[in-house]
Amino acid sequence: MRVEVFFTPGELQGADVAGRTVVVIDVLRATTTIAEAFAAGARAVYPVASVEEAARLASTLGRDEVLLCGERRCLPIEGFDLGNSPREFTSERVAGKALVMSTTNGTYAISLATGAERVITASFANLGAVAAAIAGDTDVVIVCAGRQGRFALEDAVCAGLLLEALAGPGGSAPEGGDAVDAARSLAGSFAPTREMLANTAAGRDLIDAGLGDDLELCARIDRLDLVPVIRDRHIELLETAAA
Amino acid sequence: MRVEVFFTPGELQGADVAGRTVVVIDVLRATTTIAEAFAAGARAVYPVASVEEAARLASTLGRDEVLLCGERRCLPIEGFDLGNSPREFTSERVAGKALVMSTTNGTYAISLATGAERVITASFANLGAVAAAIAGDTDVVIVCAGRQGRFALEDAVCAGLLLEALAGPGGSAPEGGDAVDAARSLAGSFAPTREMLANTAAGRDLIDAGLGDDLELCARIDRLDLVPVIRDRHIELLETAAA
Repeated sequence: MRVEVFFTPGELQGADVAGRTVVVIDVLRATTTIAEAFAAGARAVYPVASVEEAARLASTLGRDEVLLCGERRCLPIEGFDLGNSPREFTSERVAGKALVMSTTNGTYAISLATGAERVITASFANLGAVAAAIAGDTDVVIVCAGRQGRFALEDAVCAGLLLEALAGPGGSAPEGGDAVDAARSLAGSFAPTREMLANTAAGRDLIDAGLGDDLELCARIDRLDLVPVIRDRHIELLETAAA
Repeated sequence: MRVEVFFTPGELQGADVAGRTVVVIDVLRATTTIAEAFAAGARAVYPVASVEEAARLASTLGRDEVLLCGERRCLPIEGFDLGNSPREFTSERVAGKALVMSTTNGTYAISLATGAERVITASFANLGAVAAAIAGDTDVVIVCAGRQGRFALEDAVCAGLLLEALAGPGGSAPEGGDAVDAARSLAGSFAPTREMLANTAAGRDLIDAGLGDDLELCARIDRLDLVPVIRDRHIELLETAAA
């Protein structure tokens, strides 16, 4: 397996994703929340860039079946049904619903993967399931959403743990470039915990916004055995062999 | 001291460098070569973006006093006097000369620092001298040149070792964001050696171009006690208290 890691979306721009599997990581919080939404029974997630696009798409899809969700500066968007906190995505709220989601970093990173063979979203929550789903792929690109276009430690550590999971116990390490080596090293140095996330820039933003309780949930590894995958304009659950 | 680290120049674009000290790192090879050039007695280095700009500037400065140097795809540029290999910059060749230099990644990163309080170039070769020169500064930005806009491990490790040197034995760690924590961790995991550089993407490029002998020189720490600093359009030696 050949793997490339991009620590920021800006490094990916112009890179060729055609024919490759792209894994998008935004631990705090978009890809954690997407995994949580599917665990709670959401039918689909539509990632969109702007509030205006979210409103337009919701009216196309039929407002009754849709929940608008997302954040700006960590906080829920005015007039939306849900923010971007995974704790909000309970089965009572989202089961059977289509979610139209707009976040600052995650949905932008997802948009860059247009043209890929397939696009999957990963977080600490579903690392093992993602590793199993892509283990047979030959050419993988891991895109860290970062924070405001810059390096985010939690996404790099998540990329590194995904690489470790792909290597497996006794397995061969995926081949890759400098960022692959760095991500694996960082995953060995920074174990994901609430405290580790609280020391990142994105974690401090959440604490400052009164959303520090999200961190513990976002830090927990492999609590969800599911793989969100993009089909056309929306994200749905990948049907795995085990399902 | 407050420090920010940018692993790629693209992350810096639009960031405010006014009033701050910017340290540019391009271990393979621009900032190593710049340090080497000054050690060999060069009078000044003019970083320029293009071959055309290099030729124009050389004719302005007076062709007899100037050496054209730099690379494209690691190799010397046709019609130029020197490539970008630090081994070429001997006192026989460059003493008393002004060098007009164009490289792929390093000179671009330097150009982004326009407007900074001061701009310094660092590499493994002059880490300790740079740390001593900026130890009293309150607001420092470290910019890794990277490779073709992407993360380069050797530059990140150099940034981390510079942060360690600033912290000093028993000193307090500089405050910063996620990339500061990551750079320090990577510096602890990847000691700069010829072998370490040979495993990076930029190192492999050099080996493929027949320039693998550069790696050993580029890996050696603190062999040059000098600090290149930008004044207007050129780089010159910082007059340090010890000088």
